[in-house]
Amino acid sequence: MNIPGKLLSFLKKEDEFTIATHINPDGDALGSSLALSMALESMGKKTTVFDKDPVPGFYRFLPGNERFSNCLEGNIRNLILLDCNHPERAGIETAGFSCSVVVDHHQTEKEFGDIKWIRPDAPATGLMVYLIIKALDLAITRDIATNLYTAIAVDTGTFRYSNTNAEVLGVASSLVDAGAEPGVVSENLHETWTEGRFKLLICAMNTLEIIDDIAVMTVAREMYGKTGTGAEDTENFTNFPRMIKGIRVSVLFREIEADYWKVSLRSRGDIDVAKVAELFNGGGHKNAAGCRIKAVLETAKKMLIDKIRNPHAL
Amino acid sequence: MNIPGKLLSFLKKEDEFTIATHINPDGDALGSSLALSMALESMGKKTTVFDKDPVPGFYRFLPGNERFSNCLEGNIRNLILLDCNHPERAGIETAGFSCSVVVDHHQTEKEFGDIKWIRPDAPATGLMVYLIIKALDLAITRDIATNLYTAIAVDTGTFRYSNTNAEVLGVASSLVDAGAEPGVVSENLHETWTEGRFKLLICAMNTLEIIDDIAVMTVAREMYGKTGTGAEDTENFTNFPRMIKGIRVSVLFREIEADYWKVSLRSRGDIDVAKVAELFNGGGHKNAAGCRIKAVLETAKKMLIDKIRNPHAL
Repeated sequence: MNIPGKLLSFLKKEDEFTIATHINPDGDALGSSLALSMALESMGKKTTVFDKDPVPGFYRFLPGNERFSNCLEGNIRNLILLDCNHPERAGIETAGFSCSVVVDHHQTEKEFGDIKWIRPDAPATGLMVYLIIKALDLAITRDIATNLYTAIAVDTGTFRYSNTNAEVLGVASSLVDAGAEPGVVSENLHETWTEGRFKLLICAMNTLEIIDDIAVMTVAREMYGKTGTGAEDTENFTNFPRMIKGIRVSVLFREIEADYWKVSLRSRGDIDVAKVAELFNGGGHKNAAGCRIKAVLETAKKMLIDKIRNPHAL
Repeated sequence: MNIPGKLLSFLKKEDEFTIATHINPDGDALGSSLALSMALESMGKKTTVFDKDPVPGFYRFLPGNERFSNCLEGNIRNLILLDCNHPERAGIETAGFSCSVVVDHHQTEKEFGDIKWIRPDAPATGLMVYLIIKALDLAITRDIATNLYTAIAVDTGTFRYSNTNAEVLGVASSLVDAGAEPGVVSENLHETWTEGRFKLLICAMNTLEIIDDIAVMTVAREMYGKTGTGAEDTENFTNFPRMIKGIRVSVLFREIEADYWKVSLRSRGDIDVAKVAELFNGGGHKNAAGCRIKAVLETAKKMLIDKIRNPHAL
């Protein structure tokens, strides 16, 4: 991947940068931002790292995560947007940057940025930041390595998704050489569930129904009390039934109040669950979407499954 | 890692090999065996690959898996044991090999093998087989790459375990260059569970007990009947409770017959479960080991937990 020459000369020439990433930041957003900030500071530059939302608790192991600021003061001179392609996605309302840069691997086309480097074929923005740091001939410190390794690990599902390629594995190898610890990063990403959350997952799994290629699980409110958990603990539950061969849609019904359900949908391949969710005034992406349904559980399930089977019927 | 010169000259000199691996074979055992067999055959050698147990259904995507034979006929001249260090572990009763080789990364010391290459620091036997193939200057075909990538992926938990190092990630990168497809391998490893296997996992999870930092699950024989599964479907079950923060040892008791248990142990960090397993005549690695215990379940659990707490007590 060729880095635009303009981007490298901009980073060399300017002295001060505001690095910003998207709201609800994930590991790629956070790790890429911290790594680039650390690398530029090692050149004597001044950087501010910004995310409108706070760093989620389970990402507080990232070295330097306390550098993130949640508010921007004064004029932004040189804006570098990472892992997103428009200030809106970063919750930035200000305009009038003297120069704006976009480094991103998301596909959506947006008209923004004086200097753009957008590579939808890059598995992670962290990989692009790695290439920038190498092109600037800066050292990959242990902290930079940990941030970039995490960025890459999150966006490739620790090398399980089909975006995992030879290059990203090779870069991961160099990052481990530079001090990143795969076991520690994975433990922080995948092994920090509370006992209650695990027990809530067991409760949900016990409700599993498989209807042809659709898996349905339910979380009833009383399960939270029994396990000392809350609604936020159900994140990712829909991924588990995807382990089963042939499951093309996985659905979680989460009880909000009596006969009122928050529905999460995950699908494989061509099945567009965003379209299904839209029929219930929800939305999302093709393979990950959500909506709310007001009905008795059995009716709600039937309505949803009918729409998954035939999203175009009235 | 230096490969013993004797091993390489033996492989070059001899014409016929029996490659055998352990009973209840996992991805490292199977992938390593198939890759070595394919590589030696590309040199014009004749090989037999042997596993006493059939290839589990979810490993049938491995190229060449149909080569495995479940019985050995006649005299074995040149035996190559992979991913295990004694014929017993491979279910081989015959003695009198003209030459026997052991290539393994398991810790337990056994007095067997005319030529031994044992590297407990290797994350997978697949990595060792890769190094042998490179040292013999043979091509890594797409099929060999897929077998070795799977071997490595399985034994590093697709690069999540603390045994993941720069070398293994670098080798994985080369294997992808040679044609291995990480997304396809991962889908086959992680998303091809039968419905029955997923239901067996639910049964096992329902038995979860947490005793301080030890998680214990049990699979009773009757669960197989209820879910249409078998013992081989319990592979990886011990990994699930590791998601819980603070769990340092995860144990699965699998009923072989009345009051007779196969015990799988997984640990984190410094806890050496191989030492614990050895106290019950089992073995394995520091963080992944197994043994068998003959006792009523509650007694078996108590005996094991006592030994985990204090492996040095008599």
